[in-house]
Amino acid sequence: MSLALKEAWTQQILTFPNPSVGALILDKEGKILAIEATQAHGQSHAELHAIERAMIEMGDKILETLKTPNEKHAHILRYHDNRFKGCTIYTTLEPCNHQGKTPACSALIKELGFKKLFCGSIDPNQDASGGLQTLQNAGIETEVGILKSECDTLLTPFRKYQQKKPFVFFKLALSANGVYDGGIITSKTSRTHVHQMRNAIDLLVVGGETVRVDRPTLDSRMVAGKAPDILILSHHKEFDKSIPLFSVEGRKVFIEENFDKIKQYRFIMIEGAEMMLQASAAIVDWYCIFSSSTMKKGKTLQIEKGLQRLQLMKNEHETITWFQKKDL
Amino acid sequence: MSLALKEAWTQQILTFPNPSVGALILDKEGKILAIEATQAHGQSHAELHAIERAMIEMGDKILETLKTPNEKHAHILRYHDNRFKGCTIYTTLEPCNHQGKTPACSALIKELGFKKLFCGSIDPNQDASGGLQTLQNAGIETEVGILKSECDTLLTPFRKYQQKKPFVFFKLALSANGVYDGGIITSKTSRTHVHQMRNAIDLLVVGGETVRVDRPTLDSRMVAGKAPDILILSHHKEFDKSIPLFSVEGRKVFIEENFDKIKQYRFIMIEGAEMMLQASAAIVDWYCIFSSSTMKKGKTLQIEKGLQRLQLMKNEHETITWFQKKDL
Repeated sequence: MSLALKEAWTQQILTFPNPSVGALILDKEGKILAIEATQAHGQSHAELHAIERAMIEMGDKILETLKTPNEKHAHILRYHDNRFKGCTIYTTLEPCNHQGKTPACSALIKELGFKKLFCGSIDPNQDASGGLQTLQNAGIETEVGILKSECDTLLTPFRKYQQKKPFVFFKLALSANGVYDGGIITSKTSRTHVHQMRNAIDLLVVGGETVRVDRPTLDSRMVAGKAPDILILSHHKEFDKSIPLFSVEGRKVFIEENFDKIKQYRFIMIEGAEMMLQASAAIVDWYCIFSSSTMKKGKTLQIEKGLQRLQLMKNEHETITWFQKKDL
Repeated sequence: MSLALKEAWTQQILTFPNPSVGALILDKEGKILAIEATQAHGQSHAELHAIERAMIEMGDKILETLKTPNEKHAHILRYHDNRFKGCTIYTTLEPCNHQGKTPACSALIKELGFKKLFCGSIDPNQDASGGLQTLQNAGIETEVGILKSECDTLLTPFRKYQQKKPFVFFKLALSANGVYDGGIITSKTSRTHVHQMRNAIDLLVVGGETVRVDRPTLDSRMVAGKAPDILILSHHKEFDKSIPLFSVEGRKVFIEENFDKIKQYRFIMIEGAEMMLQASAAIVDWYCIFSSSTMKKGKTLQIEKGLQRLQLMKNEHETITWFQKKDL
C-alpha cells in the first residue's frame, strides 16, 4: 500500500477534478505485476492503468496502441485470458462503481477474477461509491482501511472539491541550500511537472513584481496543455500588455489588490517566493516545495516569512546527497 | 543494476575498508528475490547477503540465527536445494574470488547454479579479482560494464584506499530551507547513520568552537561502535578537559592549527558548517549532505563560503515535498 501511495503522490493535483489514486497488483506468488496511479482527467483510473501495464508487460502489443479508457477496458475484458485469476490488488481508494468518463473499475476487477482487494479510503463521492459492495457480492475478499490516515490525506484536495470550496496550493522551488531566487532552480523534469500542474488548475496567482521582471507566459506549453486564468496581485494596475501572458487566447487575466477572485475558482495554484508567502498565508491549504539537490547562489528563504507553522503531509525521509568538487 | 546501485549508496562509507557493493537476484521468471548491499567490515558481502535474504524470504528459519559469513556460506551450500538454479544476479562490482574474512562470492554463485551474472565494475583489488574468470570457466553467462561509470564512481573511496591515500569527506546537515545551525536538524535515523559513519572512519575532524560550545562526545554509541580519533582544528590549545570527547577510552585527541595529521590516517570525516567548509576546501574529496525535509529557523548556508564548485555524484532527482499548515 505504501508503494501505491507513493505512486499516487506523484500524480497529486494532476488528476483534478478526479482524486489521485494509486494501485498495485500482485500475482499469486506475490510478484509485483504493476504499480500505477490515476492519469489526467478522462484518462485511465489507477486500477485500469495498473491492469493495462501488467498486460503490456506480459506481452500484449495492442493495448499500448489504444487511446481511450473505454477501448482499453473492452480490450482487457476480451483478451485477459484469466491471467489475473487469483491475483491481489491494492488501491488507495475504493474502486469506482460507475460508468463516468471511464468504465467502472469494480466491474473490471470482478470480471478478471481477482481474489483479494486491499483498500485504504472509502470513496466519499456518492456517485462513484459502492465498488466495495460490488466486489464483496462477487465473492472477492476485501480488507479496508489499510494505511487509512495516509490514504485520506492523499484525498484532501478532492474532498475540498466535493465540498465546493476552493483548494489553494502554493508552489515554491528551493535549492539544497534554501535559495529561492536568481533564475532557474529546478530541472526540466520539474518544470514539466509545473506545466502539468498549470494544465490541471483553473486559476494561477502571481505577484505583479514577478510579471514585470520575468515577463512570463504562464501557460503549460511543455505539455501542450491549457493556460489557466491568471490573477496578478498588484497595487498598480498598469502593466505592459506586450508581456506574453496577456496574449494567450481563451484566458482571463485579473489584476487585483486582494485574493477575493479565488472564490470564483475551484483549484488554485500560487507561484511565488517570500513576499507572496507572507501575503497568502491566510488562504493557502497546502504548500508544495520542489527541492533541488544542487547548491545555488542567491537569497535564502527565512522561515519567519510565513512558513512558521508548516507540517509535513507525509513521513518524508531525509535524503543523503553526495557531491564532489568539480576539479577532482 | 540501478536498484543495486541505489542500495549500495545507502552503505557508502559504512563498509570501509571494503567497497560498498550492491547485488540484486532475479528468479527464472524475472521476479526480484532480493536487493542487498555489503554489510560492515567482516560481515556479509552483497552477494552473500542477497542470497541469504532470498532464502529467508523462501522460508529458511535457521539462516537468520547464524552470525558469521562463514556459517551462512556453509548453511547456504548445504540447504539451497537448487532454488537458485537458472537465476540471474546483478552486482555493481565483480564478485570477489578469494577467501578473506568472508568466503569467496564467486564460489557461492557457481555452486548455486546461477545462469547469468551482470556486473558493473571490474575488481581493482589484485587479491580479490578473478571472480569473473571463475564464473565464465564454470559456464555462467557474464555481461560486464553495466552502468560502468556509475559503478566506478561508487568505488572512489575504495580506490583511494588502495592507492594508500587518505579519503576525506565532509558531512553537513541542512534543513529544507538551507539552515545549518540552531540545534538538531536531522532525525534519529540520520543521526544513527552518522554514528555508523563514525564507527567506520579512523579520524574525525571538528572545529574548536564546536567543541567548546556543544561539548560533544563524538563517539558511535547509537550503534555501539568504536570512537574514532579526533582532530580539533583550533588556534587555541586550551580546552576544558571535562568535555566528554576527551574521556573516551582508547582514542587519541589532537589539537592542531592545520590538517597535517590527516596524512597519518586513511578514512577521515569532517563535521562542521560554514567556517569548517572554508577551512577544509582544499583537502576534501567528497561532501555528504543530509537534507531534511522540514523547515527550520536559523542561519542559512551561503554558497560563497566554500561550496562554489560542487558537482553531484549521482543523477539525483528533485523531490517534491508537500506541507500543510498546522492549524488546518
